[in-house]
Amino acid sequence: MPAIRHALSTKREDDFAQWYQEVISEAELAEESGVRGCMVIRPWGYGIWERIQKLMDADIKAAGVDNCYFPLFIPLSYFAKEAEHVEGFAKEMAVVTHHRLISDGDKGLVPDPEAKLEEPLVVRPTSETVIGQAMSRWIQSWRDLPLLTNQWANVVRWEMRTRMFLRTSEFLWQEGHTAHADREGAMEETLRALEMYRAFAERALAMPVIAGEKPENERFPGAVATYSIEAMMQDGKALQAGTSHYLGTGFSKAANIRYQDREGEQQYCHTTSWGTSTRMVGGVIMTHGDDDGLRVPPTLAPHQIVILPMLREDDGDAALLAYCEAIYRELASQYALGEPVRVLLDKRAGKATQKRWGWVKKGVPLILEIGGRDASGGQVSVLRRDRLWNENAKADFRAMTRDDFVATAAGELEDIQSSLFSEAAERRDANLVRGIETLDQLAEFYGEDNRYPGWVELGWSKPTGAQLEQVVQTLKALKLTIRNTPIAAAAPSGTCLFTGKPAVETIYVARAY
Amino acid sequence: MPAIRHALSTKREDDFAQWYQEVISEAELAEESGVRGCMVIRPWGYGIWERIQKLMDADIKAAGVDNCYFPLFIPLSYFAKEAEHVEGFAKEMAVVTHHRLISDGDKGLVPDPEAKLEEPLVVRPTSETVIGQAMSRWIQSWRDLPLLTNQWANVVRWEMRTRMFLRTSEFLWQEGHTAHADREGAMEETLRALEMYRAFAERALAMPVIAGEKPENERFPGAVATYSIEAMMQDGKALQAGTSHYLGTGFSKAANIRYQDREGEQQYCHTTSWGTSTRMVGGVIMTHGDDDGLRVPPTLAPHQIVILPMLREDDGDAALLAYCEAIYRELASQYALGEPVRVLLDKRAGKATQKRWGWVKKGVPLILEIGGRDASGGQVSVLRRDRLWNENAKADFRAMTRDDFVATAAGELEDIQSSLFSEAAERRDANLVRGIETLDQLAEFYGEDNRYPGWVELGWSKPTGAQLEQVVQTLKALKLTIRNTPIAAAAPSGTCLFTGKPAVETIYVARAY
Repeated sequence: MPAIRHALSTKREDDFAQWYQEVISEAELAEESGVRGCMVIRPWGYGIWERIQKLMDADIKAAGVDNCYFPLFIPLSYFAKEAEHVEGFAKEMAVVTHHRLISDGDKGLVPDPEAKLEEPLVVRPTSETVIGQAMSRWIQSWRDLPLLTNQWANVVRWEMRTRMFLRTSEFLWQEGHTAHADREGAMEETLRALEMYRAFAERALAMPVIAGEKPENERFPGAVATYSIEAMMQDGKALQAGTSHYLGTGFSKAANIRYQDREGEQQYCHTTSWGTSTRMVGGVIMTHGDDDGLRVPPTLAPHQIVILPMLREDDGDAALLAYCEAIYRELASQYALGEPVRVLLDKRAGKATQKRWGWVKKGVPLILEIGGRDASGGQVSVLRRDRLWNENAKADFRAMTRDDFVATAAGELEDIQSSLFSEAAERRDANLVRGIETLDQLAEFYGEDNRYPGWVELGWSKPTGAQLEQVVQTLKALKLTIRNTPIAAAAPSGTCLFTGKPAVETIYVARAY
Repeated sequence: MPAIRHALSTKREDDFAQWYQEVISEAELAEESGVRGCMVIRPWGYGIWERIQKLMDADIKAAGVDNCYFPLFIPLSYFAKEAEHVEGFAKEMAVVTHHRLISDGDKGLVPDPEAKLEEPLVVRPTSETVIGQAMSRWIQSWRDLPLLTNQWANVVRWEMRTRMFLRTSEFLWQEGHTAHADREGAMEETLRALEMYRAFAERALAMPVIAGEKPENERFPGAVATYSIEAMMQDGKALQAGTSHYLGTGFSKAANIRYQDREGEQQYCHTTSWGTSTRMVGGVIMTHGDDDGLRVPPTLAPHQIVILPMLREDDGDAALLAYCEAIYRELASQYALGEPVRVLLDKRAGKATQKRWGWVKKGVPLILEIGGRDASGGQVSVLRRDRLWNENAKADFRAMTRDDFVATAAGELEDIQSSLFSEAAERRDANLVRGIETLDQLAEFYGEDNRYPGWVELGWSKPTGAQLEQVVQTLKALKLTIRNTPIAAAAPSGTCLFTGKPAVETIYVARAY
């Protein structure tokens, strides 16, 4: 029997990257699959993703966007056009070349040489090209616009360095693709999706983000404008957690997406695309995790409340279970955060302390321990996971009457949701640094390579072309990137520390995932 | 402008297969993607699949099964063991051999020879092997059992002849995989999943099915027992719409899934697997479609009620829309079949008759047409799609007061659900043929190759081995297969027409998809 561990072996401040891997493992979120860069998402991690999907899908549907499903495979020829048009064309993709396995003596199974595909198939890195083809079939007239489609799917990008949830060869995502009659309609949609992501991150993930426009050099290949939401992780690094692109008519021209306008003229559509992925789960871990594991915002928790009966395998167990089951029913019939409360009665065999530690690491918002004496006295013992937990602090459990707990549980969940958000927002705000006026100050602020003291807010003159490239290189030397120009920012005063010219926009620079 | 069509060009009785394709196209369920054997599932078709997923996922979760996600790719070596153990090992799979594209002069993009994978990867035809590996990691002790997992995913089987929804190279499915301490637990789970499928098909798809055990020759490779639900399509053919397998300890031995029992001994687990797929959408079409297109059971309809304002692009439109919006709100706040009513106000530009025909073909359960005169008179005009529709029969629309419609809409939806089920059950029962006592009668009953007059119920002696094989060949000559032995059947009397021995079980034989 392994010893019962009551602490992670790594603290955040000692090695954040190692801590991240440990949380994923100890909270049973995901694990390596044996297939390079692909992970197995375990029930607790997948349950969080299902919650993200469910809540975001409701937002997507509410915006009138229709879900579709497009093929996993894309013929090689579809990429040829894109390769011509798009400079930043990514070539790292999984290529299917055969459609049969065959036994080859000592070698065992091999791809059957007789079953080589005439045209290789690429495993979709995005469905953009096939969706573009579908749009060109589906759109005839202005009456067909706007066309608003979304897909939930797995995609594959052959990544050299992978990190679970943040960068994996296969990942799960949604990709919205829309076509509009004009620039105005498409820009409105681009910003609607961005605002949807911003509000979603804050409401559902309890993760404060800054929504803004990416600089020219960080645009999606082919995009006229790219927007992102950026979240600050606990180590001060930035995580891009969603993007929205206005593609102008460039993509329509490549895919021949045209419509007949009210005057009978053929016009090219203006298109957008926007996406988020399982990367958000990584963001949740690095925003809310603590030295005891994950803390899951109640909106996302597959179980919001876990009831742990302290079973003793004796005659008292039946009464204890009946008591727990009654509490279970009372909780399950309640609503919190607009949905029925999700509660689990954990009757599994095993030591109570071990089971408790398992749920603490997983970050269940409320853990209810109930022993035989609690049952006979009408009491419960409550742990609120958003507050620091340690194995010796018995005080972290609060004794309450059962009635008091049942009456306040929904409110507690809502309070945990807002307290996790506030904690993250306060930390983020405390690490948004202003007042840096020279490159030397910037270099000094970031200092050593591996320090991530937060983000620096700068006014800048919005250089373009070669001048921008120079700024990018200067920042690169400091391992920094421009995250975005916040949508909501006031016009800055002062001068741009890169160019010496008057500042016209606000940007954030940061080290990033 | 294309002429407005008010009928499908093919009737069911003239060419059922052609009619099926036409419904898929005209109801905008799916279309060919340009990738061999892979389809694009359009919003109406995908919306039906989303409803299936949502409802079945609730059943799966209610049974305590946890969703996970496993990698799309499976290393070739994982199949080697399976190929050794399993006779019916399917070899038609998509094989990834390269991870990069490169430009090769005139040839354009090609797989980069420098980026050949050391070990080819197979695109999962099922995740059985990787799930087995995960189970062998996750299961240590009897305390970890039962382990109940499920995955919703896309899978690929390289099919030579494809038909949309019924047999596609890529399809969407769920696969349940469970591990248990003993035969009893595993058999209970196998039959639980079967019963879940049976009840789901009848309740959600309004599709009557017969749940039963497959004969030995139709078992899943490696299974000890295979069960299925079988539905009768309108052409009399059988559709296997879900399967559940008891795998004994064979799969555990191959994947080394063991646990320590209460006495400290190592034991192999008994495992099960069970699955359903987008094939069910094909079943819905062939069960409920009529000569005007699809009829979607209200449980599955992405929109249960569509409100069609007869807009005239004049001053009256504002009042008409206000009237429709008020009805929309009243309907959307109601519940039918245990969920909020899903209603759409279709304000798109376009001719009302054309829009109506579009929704008729799609099979929206209730269509509400509202003109200016209806609005001022407090009336609505209602079409109930489960009754025969034709373009001239104005009488198919029923005029009602708005208040009456709102008061009865939820009840109408529930009535449509049960009426579609009854219609299908009556047709099925009328085409379950009994009393055939000789092979000659059987041959005569099926007659020509392309007649599908229903299923024949037979008593049989449950032959095995070579004797069974002979029966299978006899049936094959008539293009027939044994569908299953119904779980619920009473013990038969009489003799087996294949062997002349006393009948011990009831079977259904049929032509099948």
